[in-house]
Amino acid sequence: MSYYSPLLEKISSRKVRIGILGLGYVGLPLATLFARKGYTVLGLDKSPDKVQKIAQGESYISDVKSVELKGVVDSKAFSASVDFSRIAECEVLIICVPTPLDRFKKPDMSFIQDASSSIGKFMRPGTLVSLESTTYPTTTEEFMLPILEKESGLKHGQDFWVCFSPERVDPGNRQFHTENIPKVVGGLGEEAQELAKTLYGNAIDQICPVSSPRAAEMVKILENTYRLVNISLVNEMALLCGKMGINIWEVIEAAKTKPYGFQAFYPGPGIGGHCIPLDPFYLEHIARNFNFDLAMIHTAGHIDNMMPHRMMIKINTALNRQKKSLNGSRILFMGVAYKPDIDDERESPALKIIDEVVKKGAQAFYHDPFIPRICTHEGVTLENSALSDGLLETMDCVVFTTNHSVFDVDSIVKRARLVVDLRNAVKDPDEKVYKL
Amino acid sequence: MSYYSPLLEKISSRKVRIGILGLGYVGLPLATLFARKGYTVLGLDKSPDKVQKIAQGESYISDVKSVELKGVVDSKAFSASVDFSRIAECEVLIICVPTPLDRFKKPDMSFIQDASSSIGKFMRPGTLVSLESTTYPTTTEEFMLPILEKESGLKHGQDFWVCFSPERVDPGNRQFHTENIPKVVGGLGEEAQELAKTLYGNAIDQICPVSSPRAAEMVKILENTYRLVNISLVNEMALLCGKMGINIWEVIEAAKTKPYGFQAFYPGPGIGGHCIPLDPFYLEHIARNFNFDLAMIHTAGHIDNMMPHRMMIKINTALNRQKKSLNGSRILFMGVAYKPDIDDERESPALKIIDEVVKKGAQAFYHDPFIPRICTHEGVTLENSALSDGLLETMDCVVFTTNHSVFDVDSIVKRARLVVDLRNAVKDPDEKVYKL
Repeated sequence: MSYYSPLLEKISSRKVRIGILGLGYVGLPLATLFARKGYTVLGLDKSPDKVQKIAQGESYISDVKSVELKGVVDSKAFSASVDFSRIAECEVLIICVPTPLDRFKKPDMSFIQDASSSIGKFMRPGTLVSLESTTYPTTTEEFMLPILEKESGLKHGQDFWVCFSPERVDPGNRQFHTENIPKVVGGLGEEAQELAKTLYGNAIDQICPVSSPRAAEMVKILENTYRLVNISLVNEMALLCGKMGINIWEVIEAAKTKPYGFQAFYPGPGIGGHCIPLDPFYLEHIARNFNFDLAMIHTAGHIDNMMPHRMMIKINTALNRQKKSLNGSRILFMGVAYKPDIDDERESPALKIIDEVVKKGAQAFYHDPFIPRICTHEGVTLENSALSDGLLETMDCVVFTTNHSVFDVDSIVKRARLVVDLRNAVKDPDEKVYKL
Repeated sequence: MSYYSPLLEKISSRKVRIGILGLGYVGLPLATLFARKGYTVLGLDKSPDKVQKIAQGESYISDVKSVELKGVVDSKAFSASVDFSRIAECEVLIICVPTPLDRFKKPDMSFIQDASSSIGKFMRPGTLVSLESTTYPTTTEEFMLPILEKESGLKHGQDFWVCFSPERVDPGNRQFHTENIPKVVGGLGEEAQELAKTLYGNAIDQICPVSSPRAAEMVKILENTYRLVNISLVNEMALLCGKMGINIWEVIEAAKTKPYGFQAFYPGPGIGGHCIPLDPFYLEHIARNFNFDLAMIHTAGHIDNMMPHRMMIKINTALNRQKKSLNGSRILFMGVAYKPDIDDERESPALKIIDEVVKKGAQAFYHDPFIPRICTHEGVTLENSALSDGLLETMDCVVFTTNHSVFDVDSIVKRARLVVDLRNAVKDPDEKVYKL
């Protein structure tokens, strides 16, 4: 007897309990969405802090409003726990754990491994398992599925089903969020696909089915590889334009007037965040297993890697014109988040540039209203400096590393002795402003 | 006394005669457009054949309709000549000559050089010279201008003015053509800019001014470098997907559902035409002069270079499954134009694949309703084969190299023994169809 038909019926009529493993910037919005759409959702996370905040209806993810979270918590549609044995209560399990790289840029699969083991240990027959974490193609079938079968003793296609459905969250995007971003779904086999389509279709505006988990895995990586490659391309063009006396920003604005076949990317001090600097290297990793060398990703990674160093050189060049050295200079970095108007400094190029200038003997400060303190890769720890005339007066150089919209750029430039603008923040630069 | 004000007035009131050097896919549409807009246009080309066809109102460029050409020729708004001394009759001169690469992928600047020399020899004070040929940044100022000043003895900014305004022609594009594609204009100095804006503004819907010729030169190269890099990226992804059992076409369709931050490019046997395979290498050339290594372009070029060879291997693999060798096989290539529905086979990957299979002993045939005969880089000359049941029966393999919309793909596949589909032409492939 197969558990398929009863499970499909229960998913369709929203009578399943959905367990979501990992309550970060992907899991929390997804959990509140499913809860709003009539499902009962159990969030599972190792962090007692997150679980407690959820119990209090207090959101720690800027894309989820506390009032919305409180609504689904109060109605008991959503609760959270640190007790992973409660997986046994759920008929649907969705994995939203991180997939970072280790220090050698190798995929760190330990989070998916742990989540899969937990599910395998506790899940019962009649379960759908969906992986949303961005990872290399073949992960669902060849990494997650074997763990599930081994730990559970259950059989795929009879007792349980798996699919891959990539998260496409864009933190800070006010127009597009979990509910209205089309959801790519790749089930392993027709039954898994039907279960997954029914599940997500009950909560998300548009479902985009593909023929296999590995195709779905590749979709997400293609999207982010496209971004990595194009940001690296425009960064390289910006460096060349700097040497040739061409304003890259003007060039991009003009190129954008082409009514077809062009999409604008903007240069900056480097890529950041938890997707674009990481995802393509998941693909590079698995490609090696197929004896395949991904030259475009490799080159793009190379350009990105050198950006913080190049930006340090830019700052050095600007100081040099004022007959100052990096060594001993006081440098204020405006913005350390990896993109404007968000509170996330993961993989942020600003932190890497801070490491570079500190290594040369500079004293680094930063101002970012969204980020109270930072700790860099090299262990430099700094607290947010309040912006004041006094602070700006003591700085040898102000560097715009993130273009937060709250920055009063004109007023900062007016009071600064020297400005290095890596984000095209300054619209009418005078001679003390150096642009990327 | 400066010639500026009278020239501006004459351009503005359309009382200038415009000389257009080079009457190819850029110059001919531009000449007919200016003529339609009330200017008197003199086309100059070294080819007596083109000049004669124009005199007869017979268009040889598919984007220009003969009826339209005949209209402006009959009204005497447009005439053509092989006599470059007639440059002396013109107050505006526009250079639309080719900028190819030589066999060592170095810019062949001889056409711009010849055009500049001719203009320098014959132009009179009170002239605007606009370069439209895609070329590396600094060409207008540092290559063309010195030739003009030396040959003419005239002085820029007093006797004559120069600008760069990149052609953005997309052959075969029915929606966008010379008149409604925004025109980027970069004059050398404010007067040149004003003259150029006035000239093009009288004929083209939207003018996009940039601050210098070199910025305008970079705009065009950025646009096409973006395309080269993205086509190379997707081709590399396609090759990997082939190894991993993933359908790249399905992946791209799904990625396209992302409502922001993604633009779809499609894989194929390689890039072709007179822009994308060439323009980025103009930039690579000048970058060397600035001691700068353009890694993205270099890598993209590397991937593109290997595509014909990889496609030969695909064909070989398909034949091998039927226990056939390339040596002695008869292979029919469907389409040799570099893109669908046009009659241009310049730099077409199909020709390079033909060279590859012929080198291995295969006998190559092609069918392309738009191209009566071809001669490859390696000197293979072929005539278009009429498509018939008889022809298809004698072929060991049919390869879709260009997806002309007139092809009856289903019927061809039905009659073929073996199909290699490099363009996603076959929508429901059976076991005899091999896809990229």
